[in-house]
Amino acid sequence: MSKVQKEIHLANRPEGMPSASDFSYVEREIPIPGEKQVLLKTLYLSVDPYMRGRMQDVKSYIPPFKLNEVIVGGVIAEVIESKSEYFRQGDVVIGNLGWAEFTAANEKEIRKIDPSVAPVTTHLGILGMPGLTAYFGLLDIGQPKEGETVVVSGAAGAVGSVVGQIARIKGARVVGIAGSDEKINYLKEELGFDEAINYKTTDNLKEALRKACPDGVDVYFDNVGGEITDAVFTQLNKFARIPLCGAISSYNLDGPDVGPRVQSAMIKTSALMKGYTIGDYAPRFKEASEYLGGWLQEGKLKYEETIVEGFENTPDAFLGLFKGTNKGKQLVKVADPDFATL
Amino acid sequence: MSKVQKEIHLANRPEGMPSASDFSYVEREIPIPGEKQVLLKTLYLSVDPYMRGRMQDVKSYIPPFKLNEVIVGGVIAEVIESKSEYFRQGDVVIGNLGWAEFTAANEKEIRKIDPSVAPVTTHLGILGMPGLTAYFGLLDIGQPKEGETVVVSGAAGAVGSVVGQIARIKGARVVGIAGSDEKINYLKEELGFDEAINYKTTDNLKEALRKACPDGVDVYFDNVGGEITDAVFTQLNKFARIPLCGAISSYNLDGPDVGPRVQSAMIKTSALMKGYTIGDYAPRFKEASEYLGGWLQEGKLKYEETIVEGFENTPDAFLGLFKGTNKGKQLVKVADPDFATL
Repeated sequence: MSKVQKEIHLANRPEGMPSASDFSYVEREIPIPGEKQVLLKTLYLSVDPYMRGRMQDVKSYIPPFKLNEVIVGGVIAEVIESKSEYFRQGDVVIGNLGWAEFTAANEKEIRKIDPSVAPVTTHLGILGMPGLTAYFGLLDIGQPKEGETVVVSGAAGAVGSVVGQIARIKGARVVGIAGSDEKINYLKEELGFDEAINYKTTDNLKEALRKACPDGVDVYFDNVGGEITDAVFTQLNKFARIPLCGAISSYNLDGPDVGPRVQSAMIKTSALMKGYTIGDYAPRFKEASEYLGGWLQEGKLKYEETIVEGFENTPDAFLGLFKGTNKGKQLVKVADPDFATL
Repeated sequence: MSKVQKEIHLANRPEGMPSASDFSYVEREIPIPGEKQVLLKTLYLSVDPYMRGRMQDVKSYIPPFKLNEVIVGGVIAEVIESKSEYFRQGDVVIGNLGWAEFTAANEKEIRKIDPSVAPVTTHLGILGMPGLTAYFGLLDIGQPKEGETVVVSGAAGAVGSVVGQIARIKGARVVGIAGSDEKINYLKEELGFDEAINYKTTDNLKEALRKACPDGVDVYFDNVGGEITDAVFTQLNKFARIPLCGAISSYNLDGPDVGPRVQSAMIKTSALMKGYTIGDYAPRFKEASEYLGGWLQEGKLKYEETIVEGFENTPDAFLGLFKGTNKGKQLVKVADPDFATL
């Protein structure tokens, strides 16, 4: 085994849309695990829109990435060498770890996953952070009732696609907004959305929403913000609920994110809007995982993964999130395991 | 008794700031009450910011006023003649009634009030719609906890002044935002606010808020919207709650109300924002009235009224709401009673 590996550092804090030059590949020695540590080989890593926020040097719910240090995100890895009593060679684990080919991790940073129950990649998607994010935002904040209309933006993404399906399970009418005809077909044909709108080819989104939601909008699960959200706000019903999951339309703006103020529309409709991050719900992860796993096994939840092969393509996979190239969860396959069978 | 009386009609739908010419005084015969009706003499009428919204021809939580018809709002009146078994001459009543010197009202439109318990005008203020609005917005949506910081805008108004005092009763630290030094003194010296900021004389509202709220903002009770709200949003704590009561800064805008989008700040702080109108809480009016009445009797709630004398000054009193001329509840005294003792 070569003693050298690569890891990806944040080379610049991007202004506006990030580019490949904001990332640098740095060669480092493969680390030697200490006491209660394991040496991990990265199999898959997750690129997620929220990571854009960590590239800015501003206070938020998680601290910013440091310049010229390894970028950290969701990773699935294999234990190559263990100095922990809890892990052994060939275990497959998940953790919030560096974008690196090899990592020495403390035993408390990682959690074992069972490749025989579901594909390991689902732990970065429908059974992982995106699935949990969909579950809590929709059910705790959105609280859709049978027969209500749920609109979800970013509907074909890792979170949005789960939101729509859970809303269907709860008996709601579901309308997705996404950015290509392929995604629209996927939502309607594969995931059972009642309606889907391609915001890129629609002349008048407000009018398209009015048609797709003849009874108005009771729950708007917002992944995108911006003008799509402005349009949905014109169609809110009395007592509408708006879980705020993301605002991807704003992440790469050069200037301030400015638009129509929402307050008057919310007063007129007695609407509720709430931001959240997944950490808010940590005490309830077990409950959510059980429901998501159950629905998956029953065939009530489907999922898609867009997997890019090769560690060298990680920045492209990340940048693709903002171009909407992914359908479902965007992952990077970094390597095959040496010992485990996936 | 003269057979002729005056009433105030909406003459034009104002664009931007309303003016006296949007109102017309129309002479009409004093109505004759029918079966189950009473003839009422208006004693006091209430002018409220929300009425500006009803002057526009747009769908909202209450229908718009009709052009060239009498304007309707909160009124305290005396029964002059009764064809209802529930009311008799000299009774003092409250209802949502026309801006007219005399009105024939159905018995179901009005409710008797007891002048011996509290001044009748309190039923249009601290014990009426503004008091209930403060109670439910703060306690049901804001849910202030002991030691938390509550910021209220429009703090010296009919709603804001009650919000701040209830927050103090609940053990919160209270910071008011208002538009004159006289109001600031009133809030701090008379109502016991911990801090108060004159937004008109403050160079940097964000900095003033940071000083006044060293532990950040847990609850922001929003009466005004606009740039004041933008500044408060920069100081929100994790899990902040924002009851949306009004957006008076936007009511008289010529164009759309545009500003920084709030979604990203709300995601970072997991903040909750909710619009409401008082009708949402109708099943709980009795509970609120009992608490408000109790606190008033115990001296824990104080109130101020700005009373303009003379029916002919009603439009000025209404327009004054947008210039901030009122402290506490703005009322118009239309006439003295003929039979009742107030």
